Amino acid sequence: MKSEHDWLRGLGPIIGPPSPFLRVGIGDDAAVLDPPTEPLVATVDACVEGVHFTRAIASLEDIGYRSFMAAVSDLAAMAALPLATLSALTLPPGFSEQDLDQLVTGQRLAAFAARVPLVGGNLSQGSSLSVTTTALGRAAHPTLRSGTVPGHRLWLAGPVGLAAAGLRALLRGIVGEEGALLRCILAWRRPCALLDQGASVGARVTSMIDVSDGLAQDAMHLALASHVHLIFQAEAVVNIAGTTLLDAAALLGEDPYELAFAGGEDYALLATSSEDLRPQGFTEVGRVVSGPPGITVLRDGLPWQPPPGFDHGHDREG
Amino acid sequence: MKSEHDWLRGLGPIIGPPSPFLRVGIGDDAAVLDPPTEPLVATVDACVEGVHFTRAIASLEDIGYRSFMAAVSDLAAMAALPLATLSALTLPPGFSEQDLDQLVTGQRLAAFAARVPLVGGNLSQGSSLSVTTTALGRAAHPTLRSGTVPGHRLWLAGPVGLAAAGLRALLRGIVGEEGALLRCILAWRRPCALLDQGASVGARVTSMIDVSDGLAQDAMHLALASHVHLIFQAEAVVNIAGTTLLDAAALLGEDPYELAFAGGEDYALLATSSEDLRPQGFTEVGRVVSGPPGITVLRDGLPWQPPPGFDHGHDREG
Repeated sequence: MKSEHDWLRGLGPIIGPPSPFLRVGIGDDAAVLDPPTEPLVATVDACVEGVHFTRAIASLEDIGYRSFMAAVSDLAAMAALPLATLSALTLPPGFSEQDLDQLVTGQRLAAFAARVPLVGGNLSQGSSLSVTTTALGRAAHPTLRSGTVPGHRLWLAGPVGLAAAGLRALLRGIVGEEGALLRCILAWRRPCALLDQGASVGARVTSMIDVSDGLAQDAMHLALASHVHLIFQAEAVVNIAGTTLLDAAALLGEDPYELAFAGGEDYALLATSSEDLRPQGFTEVGRVVSGPPGITVLRDGLPWQPPPGFDHGHDREG
Repeated sequence: MKSEHDWLRGLGPIIGPPSPFLRVGIGDDAAVLDPPTEPLVATVDACVEGVHFTRAIASLEDIGYRSFMAAVSDLAAMAALPLATLSALTLPPGFSEQDLDQLVTGQRLAAFAARVPLVGGNLSQGSSLSVTTTALGRAAHPTLRSGTVPGHRLWLAGPVGLAAAGLRALLRGIVGEEGALLRCILAWRRPCALLDQGASVGARVTSMIDVSDGLAQDAMHLALASHVHLIFQAEAVVNIAGTTLLDAAALLGEDPYELAFAGGEDYALLATSSEDLRPQGFTEVGRVVSGPPGITVLRDGLPWQPPPGFDHGHDREG
């Protein structure tokens, strides 16, 4: 393997699409960007082998892709447009230059899909593979987890449950011969952060969070931050993913409601606003009421307890 | 151990000194800062157990402190003033809440020393301990590794070689009864990024880099980026650390010149400018000439080949 310095120099100043804001990219002590005119949003997210993924079910390209999208999804949750990303890679013994190329190819594909480049990074040896991604963005009206009040509506953008179904299929060795399962596997391997939907909510939305750890768990974070109680209509949630989720659940012998509420890594967006200000691209899935901070899921009109969300061994904060 | 979510909530929105730029700190999907009025500088740096440190010679407080300073030193190298930092921690099995408190205490102490807060982060499980720090800053005139031309002078701020002497003392089980070795051990355990010196160079400096991997190795990076040859006066370099380096080297039976040129992790700054524009706080250590990109060290007036720098298993880029 050629030296990491040589390898990095070969990448050029940027991985992904060009940026009008970039002054200095990969290869110096730090990247330099034009100052944004709107508040700066910054977040960091780690994907660790054996915790967030195993190479048995994800290619290195998948790992690069997913880790990138997980980080920029936090920008979407803040109603931020992405400016740039940085990546710190820890590479285990035996990780070849070809392996590194595959990992970075996944990052590059995600960077093009998210329309934001990777402009700096760090390579380190380590005992296991990890990808830590910093995402920087700008938001005229950053949306927090706090801010909603009783009387507001709950909105969801993007399906939930598909990635969890795909993960379960992969863990059972199903590689996707069947239509619905194939779509679910792709939802897990190539998730898409909802940057456009997030950035377009403007000031109409009173709180927002991305669904990374499972809808029930992430909704609880929003309820705690806003000191409200959230009531979900389970059917409205499950309907967003439509027949794909129902078919995949049937093929797996799983409950589609459990997949939708406990399954993570779809990177949907959960938002709140007053009833007359539905954000574009969002579907109504419930309402905000007063009461102890928490959530109630109504299934067939009756309270239903979803199972605990996936524990990804981490908690994404800031 | 209480849940990571609860633990993070207990930290409050910020670790370290307050920031007039902070709008949203730890606890939401991302941090939010006022947009800087000057170009935005961003860098990420990882410290991995077994590669950059072992717990046999560094306390968890040291590890938190050193990892923080290593990251903000890259801001100093860009002549940037720090705005905020983010931290992604990977915690191995058995890492207790008390361990985490000690690690974060080190980060907090470094944040106060560098006068920049930690405003967001991520906790993850993993097979070994690692601390990945993102540092954000602003620079009216970012200084790159490229930019110097033949005829310019070489300037160094801060001593080099002390941290390497301290590390060797620690590896030999010396804990610092003796004055010079104790100062070297502290230089390794509690390095100080030269943020004030870096930010004060203004537009007078034509290139700059921080010395993290050893002066010879980092000078080579600058020489390659600027397509110049650098000639060092070895005595001028060694004299900056003065008798502390000479005494420590004598006690260790090491060559002080080798410690100064090959030893890393002092976080000194190497800069260039025309002769009449010496940056404040910097000492002249050589000159820039034409010739093949590389460095020549003159010791007693004769070319001398320093040993290779420390291999920290990584290359800090961007």
